[in-house]
Amino acid sequence: MSWSVCVVGSLALDSIETSTGRAEEVLGGSGAYFAVAASFLAPVRMVAVAGSDFPPEERDFLASCGIDLEGLVELEGPTFRWTGRYHEDMNVRDTLDLQLNVFAEFSPELPPAYRNSELVFLANIQPGLQASVLSQLESCRYTGADTMDHWIESDRESLESLLAGVHMLSINDSEARMLAGENNIVTAAERIRSMGPSTLIIKRGEYGALLFSEDGTFAVPAFPLEEVVDPTGAGDCFAGGVFGSLAASESLDPTALRRAMLYGSVLASFAVEDFGLGRLRTLTREDIDERYSAFLDLTRF
Amino acid sequence: MSWSVCVVGSLALDSIETSTGRAEEVLGGSGAYFAVAASFLAPVRMVAVAGSDFPPEERDFLASCGIDLEGLVELEGPTFRWTGRYHEDMNVRDTLDLQLNVFAEFSPELPPAYRNSELVFLANIQPGLQASVLSQLESCRYTGADTMDHWIESDRESLESLLAGVHMLSINDSEARMLAGENNIVTAAERIRSMGPSTLIIKRGEYGALLFSEDGTFAVPAFPLEEVVDPTGAGDCFAGGVFGSLAASESLDPTALRRAMLYGSVLASFAVEDFGLGRLRTLTREDIDERYSAFLDLTRF
Repeated sequence: MSWSVCVVGSLALDSIETSTGRAEEVLGGSGAYFAVAASFLAPVRMVAVAGSDFPPEERDFLASCGIDLEGLVELEGPTFRWTGRYHEDMNVRDTLDLQLNVFAEFSPELPPAYRNSELVFLANIQPGLQASVLSQLESCRYTGADTMDHWIESDRESLESLLAGVHMLSINDSEARMLAGENNIVTAAERIRSMGPSTLIIKRGEYGALLFSEDGTFAVPAFPLEEVVDPTGAGDCFAGGVFGSLAASESLDPTALRRAMLYGSVLASFAVEDFGLGRLRTLTREDIDERYSAFLDLTRF
Repeated sequence: MSWSVCVVGSLALDSIETSTGRAEEVLGGSGAYFAVAASFLAPVRMVAVAGSDFPPEERDFLASCGIDLEGLVELEGPTFRWTGRYHEDMNVRDTLDLQLNVFAEFSPELPPAYRNSELVFLANIQPGLQASVLSQLESCRYTGADTMDHWIESDRESLESLLAGVHMLSINDSEARMLAGENNIVTAAERIRSMGPSTLIIKRGEYGALLFSEDGTFAVPAFPLEEVVDPTGAGDCFAGGVFGSLAASESLDPTALRRAMLYGSVLASFAVEDFGLGRLRTLTREDIDERYSAFLDLTRF
């Protein structure tokens, strides 16, 4: 047995260009990346919206990962689409086109069977929608959320209200600085934790991630890779790895949290090896265990 | 007993401006930072040049660290001076003024007593001068070097010749990419190691450092600090911590190298807490041991 993870997030068809190539209309979205990554470690339930053009084979793929799709609503109209291009420095990207489509009508509703999920993650969507999920929970041990610069700038009030109600926030470093209004990352982390989430994960791309919690600070590197093909979704896969590992551990104690950070980094390291969810489609549990071992060796002293 | 560390590098009077304040004509230079940091862990011998205006109290300070100054030559004329200003993002700095002064006449000569030092570090100076030291060594277990973008651009031939003759290179990440002509850090590391140094340390400022060696890859984070006052010399102090730790361990085995990376990160973390060598002037061995413990806790799983 394992705890179950419920994720609410976006489902998208992404068109992506990086210095290594391009991909057209591949499965993406914060909810999809998180759910697929977490599904390697624990049972996952997904709340999202697809358009009527959402490819049936992608729905089948999600189902083949063992993801419970009762919460996947299909609405008439096209699926959410995002088009982006990465700079030579893959830490920087430009959004070339964004079509909300059916996502504009998304109002996440948890099927009754999801309301007692032990772990709930609110992947990056509008903070008001994320908050609406919290009020639907009946019993839940631990809630986490992600967000992005856009919401920090345009919807700070809703975001702060959301933060007051979650146990964990997962965010990247530039967004942490923006949210806290503070350049030093340690001070920024303290300010953000004072807004609500007792646990804070700050993702730093190829430099790894930091965990700030009541247990102190923990640092994990990113796995050094010879080639990064596409960083899209790496942060969502990191969070998926964290929540999947916590669910598999059935624990939220300090050791479980540290172990979860390692699994987060492992899943993120696979995510960037191909466009979209490409690498995760062929990934096996053995691949994960092997990289987890390599990861221990990378950091062991 | 402990192995001894010989360092050849620059001695300077630095004027530094950061977002937190400024300092005028404080003791600096790659050799001084390295020597002071290493002196907490092992006996250090220093080869450098000072001008006739070099403050006697700074010479006394170096001597008070237990640094052997037989190799510190004093020439008629002013000491090397550097003036720089850091951006709000302290990873970026501008050199406002550079006066080589007596450093222009520097031709490093090892006193006979230094020629059998077990460990020798060639801190960042002109690669030809660094190479001239190698030919003076009589018996030496391990040599390391640092360099900078300026030499990669203007004196690549001398630098490549130097690299063919050292065991270790310590370099920052943007310089590693420049030296290798390769953006991916893992591939860049492979190329640099194929140029000579079997061990490569890539420093990434607030993101820590990577060690590439025959033993594989090892990652250490930087210690998360609430305030960074002045990053000048942090990389030299990192290398000083590494070599000091190796000397104290009297070992170059994989465990000794990994331990040395932790001491490098510890010494660098103190270096940035005040302008110039300010923090290291009051630092105690107890402070180092305490942060080393905190560092283990930051990375332990």
